[in-house]
Amino acid sequence: MSPSDQIPPGGEDPEALASMRSMFGPDVTFLGVPRADKRRREDLESADVVVVGAPFDSGTSYRSGARFGPLAIRTGDAQPAVPRRPHLTLGIDPFAALRVVDIGDVLMPPGDIERSHANLREVVARVVAAEAIPVVLGGDHSIAYADISGVADVLGFGKVGVLHFDAHPDTWDTEFGSLYGHGTPMRRLIESGAVSGEQFVQIGLRGYWPDPRLQEWMHHQKMTWFEMATISTRGLDDCLSHAFSILLAGANAVFVSIDIDVVDPAFAPGTGVPEVGGLTSRQLLDAVRRAGLELPVVGAEVVEVSPPYDAAGTITAYLANRVVLEMLSGIARRRASSE
Amino acid sequence: MSPSDQIPPGGEDPEALASMRSMFGPDVTFLGVPRADKRRREDLESADVVVVGAPFDSGTSYRSGARFGPLAIRTGDAQPAVPRRPHLTLGIDPFAALRVVDIGDVLMPPGDIERSHANLREVVARVVAAEAIPVVLGGDHSIAYADISGVADVLGFGKVGVLHFDAHPDTWDTEFGSLYGHGTPMRRLIESGAVSGEQFVQIGLRGYWPDPRLQEWMHHQKMTWFEMATISTRGLDDCLSHAFSILLAGANAVFVSIDIDVVDPAFAPGTGVPEVGGLTSRQLLDAVRRAGLELPVVGAEVVEVSPPYDAAGTITAYLANRVVLEMLSGIARRRASSE
Amino acid sequence: MSPSDQIPPGGEDPEALASMRSMFGPDVTFLGVPRADKRRREDLESADVVVVGAPFDSGTSYRSGARFGPLAIRTGDAQPAVPRRPHLTLGIDPFAALRVVDIGDVLMPPGDIERSHANLREVVARVVAAEAIPVVLGGDHSIAYADISGVADVLGFGKVGVLHFDAHPDTWDTEFGSLYGHGTPMRRLIESGAVSGEQFVQIGLRGYWPDPRLQEWMHHQKMTWFEMATISTRGLDDCLSHAFSILLAGANAVFVSIDIDVVDPAFAPGTGVPEVGGLTSRQLLDAVRRAGLELPVVGAEVVEVSPPYDAAGTITAYLANRVVLEMLSGIARRRASSE
Amino acid sequence: MSPSDQIPPGGEDPEALASMRSMFGPDVTFLGVPRADKRRREDLESADVVVVGAPFDSGTSYRSGARFGPLAIRTGDAQPAVPRRPHLTLGIDPFAALRVVDIGDVLMPPGDIERSHANLREVVARVVAAEAIPVVLGGDHSIAYADISGVADVLGFGKVGVLHFDAHPDTWDTEFGSLYGHGTPMRRLIESGAVSGEQFVQIGLRGYWPDPRLQEWMHHQKMTWFEMATISTRGLDDCLSHAFSILLAGANAVFVSIDIDVVDPAFAPGTGVPEVGGLTSRQLLDAVRRAGLELPVVGAEVVEVSPPYDAAGTITAYLANRVVLEMLSGIARRRASSE
Amino acid sequence: MSPSDQIPPGGEDPEALASMRSMFGPDVTFLGVPRADKRRREDLESADVVVVGAPFDSGTSYRSGARFGPLAIRTGDAQPAVPRRPHLTLGIDPFAALRVVDIGDVLMPPGDIERSHANLREVVARVVAAEAIPVVLGGDHSIAYADISGVADVLGFGKVGVLHFDAHPDTWDTEFGSLYGHGTPMRRLIESGAVSGEQFVQIGLRGYWPDPRLQEWMHHQKMTWFEMATISTRGLDDCLSHAFSILLAGANAVFVSIDIDVVDPAFAPGTGVPEVGGLTSRQLLDAVRRAGLELPVVGAEVVEVSPPYDAAGTITAYLANRVVLEMLSGIARRRASSE
Amino acid sequence: MSPSDQIPPGGEDPEALASMRSMFGPDVTFLGVPRADKRRREDLESADVVVVGAPFDSGTSYRSGARFGPLAIRTGDAQPAVPRRPHLTLGIDPFAALRVVDIGDVLMPPGDIERSHANLREVVARVVAAEAIPVVLGGDHSIAYADISGVADVLGFGKVGVLHFDAHPDTWDTEFGSLYGHGTPMRRLIESGAVSGEQFVQIGLRGYWPDPRLQEWMHHQKMTWFEMATISTRGLDDCLSHAFSILLAGANAVFVSIDIDVVDPAFAPGTGVPEVGGLTSRQLLDAVRRAGLELPVVGAEVVEVSPPYDAAGTITAYLANRVVLEMLSGIARRRASSE
Repeated sequence: MSPSDQIPPGGEDPEALASMRSMFGPDVTFLGVPRADKRRREDLESADVVVVGAPFDSGTSYRSGARFGPLAIRTGDAQPAVPRRPHLTLGIDPFAALRVVDIGDVLMPPGDIERSHANLREVVARVVAAEAIPVVLGGDHSIAYADISGVADVLGFGKVGVLHFDAHPDTWDTEFGSLYGHGTPMRRLIESGAVSGEQFVQIGLRGYWPDPRLQEWMHHQKMTWFEMATISTRGLDDCLSHAFSILLAGANAVFVSIDIDVVDPAFAPGTGVPEVGGLTSRQLLDAVRRAGLELPVVGAEVVEVSPPYDAAGTITAYLANRVVLEMLSGIARRRASSE
Repeated sequence: MSPSDQIPPGGEDPEALASMRSMFGPDVTFLGVPRADKRRREDLESADVVVVGAPFDSGTSYRSGARFGPLAIRTGDAQPAVPRRPHLTLGIDPFAALRVVDIGDVLMPPGDIERSHANLREVVARVVAAEAIPVVLGGDHSIAYADISGVADVLGFGKVGVLHFDAHPDTWDTEFGSLYGHGTPMRRLIESGAVSGEQFVQIGLRGYWPDPRLQEWMHHQKMTWFEMATISTRGLDDCLSHAFSILLAGANAVFVSIDIDVVDPAFAPGTGVPEVGGLTSRQLLDAVRRAGLELPVVGAEVVEVSPPYDAAGTITAYLANRVVLEMLSGIARRRASSE
Repeated sequence: MSPSDQIPPGGEDPEALASMRSMFGPDVTFLGVPRADKRRREDLESADVVVVGAPFDSGTSYRSGARFGPLAIRTGDAQPAVPRRPHLTLGIDPFAALRVVDIGDVLMPPGDIERSHANLREVVARVVAAEAIPVVLGGDHSIAYADISGVADVLGFGKVGVLHFDAHPDTWDTEFGSLYGHGTPMRRLIESGAVSGEQFVQIGLRGYWPDPRLQEWMHHQKMTWFEMATISTRGLDDCLSHAFSILLAGANAVFVSIDIDVVDPAFAPGTGVPEVGGLTSRQLLDAVRRAGLELPVVGAEVVEVSPPYDAAGTITAYLANRVVLEMLSGIARRRASSE
Repeated sequence: MSPSDQIPPGGEDPEALASMRSMFGPDVTFLGVPRADKRRREDLESADVVVVGAPFDSGTSYRSGARFGPLAIRTGDAQPAVPRRPHLTLGIDPFAALRVVDIGDVLMPPGDIERSHANLREVVARVVAAEAIPVVLGGDHSIAYADISGVADVLGFGKVGVLHFDAHPDTWDTEFGSLYGHGTPMRRLIESGAVSGEQFVQIGLRGYWPDPRLQEWMHHQKMTWFEMATISTRGLDDCLSHAFSILLAGANAVFVSIDIDVVDPAFAPGTGVPEVGGLTSRQLLDAVRRAGLELPVVGAEVVEVSPPYDAAGTITAYLANRVVLEMLSGIARRRASSE
Repeated sequence: MSPSDQIPPGGEDPEALASMRSMFGPDVTFLGVPRADKRRREDLESADVVVVGAPFDSGTSYRSGARFGPLAIRTGDAQPAVPRRPHLTLGIDPFAALRVVDIGDVLMPPGDIERSHANLREVVARVVAAEAIPVVLGGDHSIAYADISGVADVLGFGKVGVLHFDAHPDTWDTEFGSLYGHGTPMRRLIESGAVSGEQFVQIGLRGYWPDPRLQEWMHHQKMTWFEMATISTRGLDDCLSHAFSILLAGANAVFVSIDIDVVDPAFAPGTGVPEVGGLTSRQLLDAVRRAGLELPVVGAEVVEVSPPYDAAGTITAYLANRVVLEMLSGIARRRASSE
Repeated sequence: MSPSDQIPPGGEDPEALASMRSMFGPDVTFLGVPRADKRRREDLESADVVVVGAPFDSGTSYRSGARFGPLAIRTGDAQPAVPRRPHLTLGIDPFAALRVVDIGDVLMPPGDIERSHANLREVVARVVAAEAIPVVLGGDHSIAYADISGVADVLGFGKVGVLHFDAHPDTWDTEFGSLYGHGTPMRRLIESGAVSGEQFVQIGLRGYWPDPRLQEWMHHQKMTWFEMATISTRGLDDCLSHAFSILLAGANAVFVSIDIDVVDPAFAPGTGVPEVGGLTSRQLLDAVRRAGLELPVVGAEVVEVSPPYDAAGTITAYLANRVVLEMLSGIARRRASSE
């Protein structure tokens, strides 16, 4: 471990800034997978999946704390930090089947959302250009704009569908008068053309927004959404099948964006804008595994884990850790089956 | 904000006592709805729904803390304290469709349950007399005796049915040798004639009481109850349909009493007498919305939220806040449809 | 353990009410001292010190929870519940030197402060009549009125001095319009003549009350108080010497009332009305031991421990437990020295 | 309460060690049932069910704290510590129908797992020899080896089936290089011949182990397991029926081992190795009650409750308390029906 | 309360943004003082002291959460939210002696530190221009740059001394490569000429920075600092007298900047960058009161209260509330004495 | 990071056991110092100070959890994990002045205290033999027996003095009938001859043991102790001077054993056997620095940090981290001065 592993916040050394690997807390990788250097192309090209930390919480409109999300998700496991996780149901170990590496955190200065997003977008694009799958650990949901734009920068605007698990649509026009924040990324993605509304499917909405004007805009963009009341009535599996058919009809590439607040706060109290009445943890795990198995996933993000609010044994971070594992296991199984 | 907004506990000024609006903590209204004066008849008459704080926890037989329930429920939301909450499923904003006001807290001295109940009963009766719907934020469940008696004082004894969500039947004869407490209100209501046992339906009972003698009394009163084991087998929707048919057969007016402990403590840890094995938060939200839509609701209460035990992001208060919103939205939709 | 050890709150059996020993939680004694029956005179007469539980929190003007104080203080120790506690500095084991028994909790229905106080006052008087020293575990500070009146009922009105550790003077005239509460007991005691203001000394006052009118009343009663700013300047030992000289001049008997909020909330977060800037735990322990050693103590109470707010390892309950031990050790040493 | 109720950890008195009843914290019985002496044969013979505390957490491979499990489970109830618990659904009070006693904790020195297990095994065997049913409150799951071996010592090796609720199979070969730990007990039981793999059924497995080699061993032993994905698809009731038919085919006696981590950490955060995506509390309660009703239960254990991680109102301990009650109620109903 | 009291984060209405009074949570004033409108000059001119909320936490280099500081400090009191706080030692009620108003929160979008600072600086300058004293409730310490620059904008660059309580000097050159953050404000203030290093005095430094290079810069600027080791040796009162003499020699106006982490985390756990070994709460209270009494205070700020980390009864917010009160009381006493 | 960084608890691979570096949680070094291999002699010989993790909590007689102490102490800092910590008062950076490395955790199976101690003792001896100073991060205090015996194995029995900060003397004869535990290590050390009682000095004792018999034994061994009451009266600095003179008279080598419970639980709630009335954090920091500066330190340990009980921002781990830094800084300064 060299002195530049973690960034000295007050350091004046540009090289230290460029090489740092952890913004907050000790420098560890996701469940102990090998470290890669985000600046070395060969490191990225030799990987199937690249874990990226996005420790940013200045996009949140309420509770902050998601800056500690990447650390909590990387270490959120009672089992040893050794990359061996045989999947019971799928009969595959994602770390044996896929080359998974972790490039550490992207430099995201809290007070400068535009620079932070630009840094992240560039890293994600570099990963996609190396033909690896970026799995981004947030951070608040504002990073979706950077993550998905970064994918679209390489694969083409309008070429990527989005499967979006969330309690909220995140389609506000502005947030506190700013264009960027965790309530606006999906609007920015559609307005910029990075993603078409027709290839945008949302799962798990509930609560008391968007308001009618916003719903109208979403309808106008031909977005599709399944609210919790619908999921209760139709069943989650049926809704997912419907959602997948929409995505598979329009896109050869799908990005999966998972806001942990899609599950009920009983299962995920450690989040910034909790909304009661959500999915169970089991429903989310099964849904994410199915997405990995059935969709052409080109990238994913798990966002809005806020450790300071994660009482009761850090169960939110544990859930997010398993969400990543289910995604990786699904992808691994799909690849193994198609070979 | 005048100096009499919150009561000075040690003040000797009777006027300050009469005009105070908050017993514990800052003086705020439910999600920012307009303030009304509980002493001004015109304030009440110009409202459709009146929110009432009942910050009382001296009726509890175990954990106290529910005195902070009204404050926690009023502010239990990550969204701004601005009364705009468009309901996604029902397509209506209860604050646009209904005139909702908040009259603050009733004066309820902790050590004097009889005076506390009398104060509350009088306020509730005044609201009902003004043809508004009282929505009372508890406080422990002992207040049900005051709330429902206050409604019956205006609408007539034996004229109001009660839909009661709870883990416990609350039909003890006495509590610590006293007639009043959170274990006895339903007994007092039936014995006084305010409510007939035939119009009393309980949802969600579980655990290890009442004992056989008490069950016998309940049967004798012709009360109906659906315990969790039954709900598991028959399904909640079927049980609710059955319950609603009983209530609609016997009463033109229904009071809905919601003890937050009807949900499992995973979803509502912040309560005085937790009992495992309860409803999910989604089940309760759907049930309450249905009650608002299908029943002639003349009043409601949400009780037993105990903030000091509400770890993990105050999720119990958040749930109670949404329970109120689902009730208001259901009522708004029903009114809009019947116009 | 018989079925009547703990009171069944909903039981209809008067005998069970009379014989119950624990209102909330399991039936245990202070550090495992022998159980005594509060109704048997010989049990009391054979004791030097009688521990009494007063699990009452309906007198508090803010945070409740002190009803769990007696249980938390009785068990607040990492060492075994075996009554052996050799005092390092004094060279005496209070449980070897004194016959200490525990009579369990007094029945104090939360919603009825007058009946609760009456029950407690009667028990305390019975203990004093048996020539034992009552050590009452609160509960909120409203019980001081019952505790000290009970002592005065036997030893005579105006015959007992009071040494009062507290952040607050507790001399309000009324609380929420009621005469009884945790802000008023010292006023009631002086007005009733149970204690003379001249024999009333307060240690540790700070914060922003009493207001001038109240201070005037206190001066008029010839009460003495030492606020924290004075203690900082003069030193605690000097203030205590001054305080003791006042008490010893006027009374042959002293009751020591210890509100745990006299220490800073860093040392005692689990309390109902925390006020920053207080004593350290070490200062309180040394002061209480000195009181036991130097004053003719006829009774004591430790109040306002509120377990639901006692995060971080229940350190408030641990402190209260040691406050009792220091008092017992001081008394034991004084007796041993005078024999 | 005599001085030997709780063990003085540093005492040199062998008699005190032999007679102690509580290793950590105050000496209380399960919900106030009568105390029995583990050394007196007549005490055990006069009982139908004997509650045994196994306060041991040195077998855990991750979070410790389960040593406080017995205390937390015994007192995990908002209702009084009086042994009256009429079961609503089954119409029976287990404490009226069965003679249930509590013998307190077994002496289990934390640093010596072999001696600890030997002490426990001997006590369990003594209970079974007295024809009573031991219900052991853990402690970590390493105690399963002692508990079930103790039963087999009396009823015969290979004569007892095991119904095992858990997120993990606990069939590791070694743990930190040791044969004994909470990851290995089921392996030891099968290898020693105490239980046959054919009579071993596991419910609730999930997560990312065992690895293929371990699965192969389990298959080779003819063990049966139902993982959560299967339970989601087939339904828990169907899986249980299948499991019970296996057990009833091969054994006249069944031991039920319940690791509280079989439920989702939302319902049971207070545990040593939490794994998301588990059963709900209601599912576990219904399953355990069914086991009591339908199987010839000769012993049971509830393990892995770790109070220091049980935030949010100690809901894990409450759940474990009810798991015991459902088991007792099921057994009581089965006995009553067969008489 | 109008719909624009709290800002709707996703609102598109510029007027709502301009008139909003609370960024996060309900709209309340400091202990219930009257509300003033930050846009109305007469509101400011009629006040002696103006409380300003600066709910910003995107300047922090570690734990966030200080955005909830203003709400927590405004309501951090067990006494009623009525502006009456008679000071025991000084014999004055600051709310009677001074006209104190609260203008609510300044709009500070989390992801845009430059715009946030600009908004705050303008408001502070407006308050000073109206000849009132701004008391700013943070927020993280990055706001010091805005607060003190705003004062200097009116009173003149180089005309204001700074008394700075903190564990850290906050004189980094950059933070995560940015000029603005909570580690850099004092550097920016001196470099911009707003404050001269000679009039900059720091109290309470400890820990393991600044490094030698930074110390050299600070010496070069002629800054003065008293570290905790010095304070232990010389005594706090002596250090303060020394500090005050420096400030009074060079400036007719002093701004007091209080980072709550100057006290030990035992007294203030709820902060972003805790450093052990600090002042006690009593030391800080006495020091701040002395500053109000002895210095020509033209503005003050209390920063780095981070409620999500404020376990154990929110004692950090309570302390910060009293720090404001001591400052106000000292100022009031000084004014009264000089009249 | 290789697969053997953290031990797989259920692994059967002896090589993995031998090479593992972290028993619980991710593999990190103390504040980012370089990693060394405990098996390579040259790694140890090239270091001045070697940090050793001893994640063992099976020696505790009450609350467990100290197994997570090493991880919490290594990462207990808000500043980056980069080994640069310039000491403000001493004007030296210990990481610049000393070669400090971290060899990770020793393998200590929880259920086997004798093997665990043997493993630790061997590692400590190896470090001392390499002429480096071991700094051991506990773990419970039972490890003192292994740590100090390991030092004595190399430097000679009776050649090393011990400076022992603690609330308790840890001189029990047995614990739960076992010779080894956190209450007995000092007895074992003296009985075995590793340390002479004359060179054993204890600072900070308080509470209610040892009992007279134990005190007699301690006196007989010529041990010296300073209890808190003495420290209050004489002052800590005077007591330390006295203690140091005893140690310097009898030994050329001193081991410093710091039980974090020597400070008051307000400053260190996260510990296994809290005892109120202790030192402040500042007192401990100053004392440890002085020990490093004035004594010939050959080894040190910081024990009894129990993270699950470390609420309120993990302040206990932060304190322990600084205790290590003060010790290192004192040693560095002493070496620099003597060169």
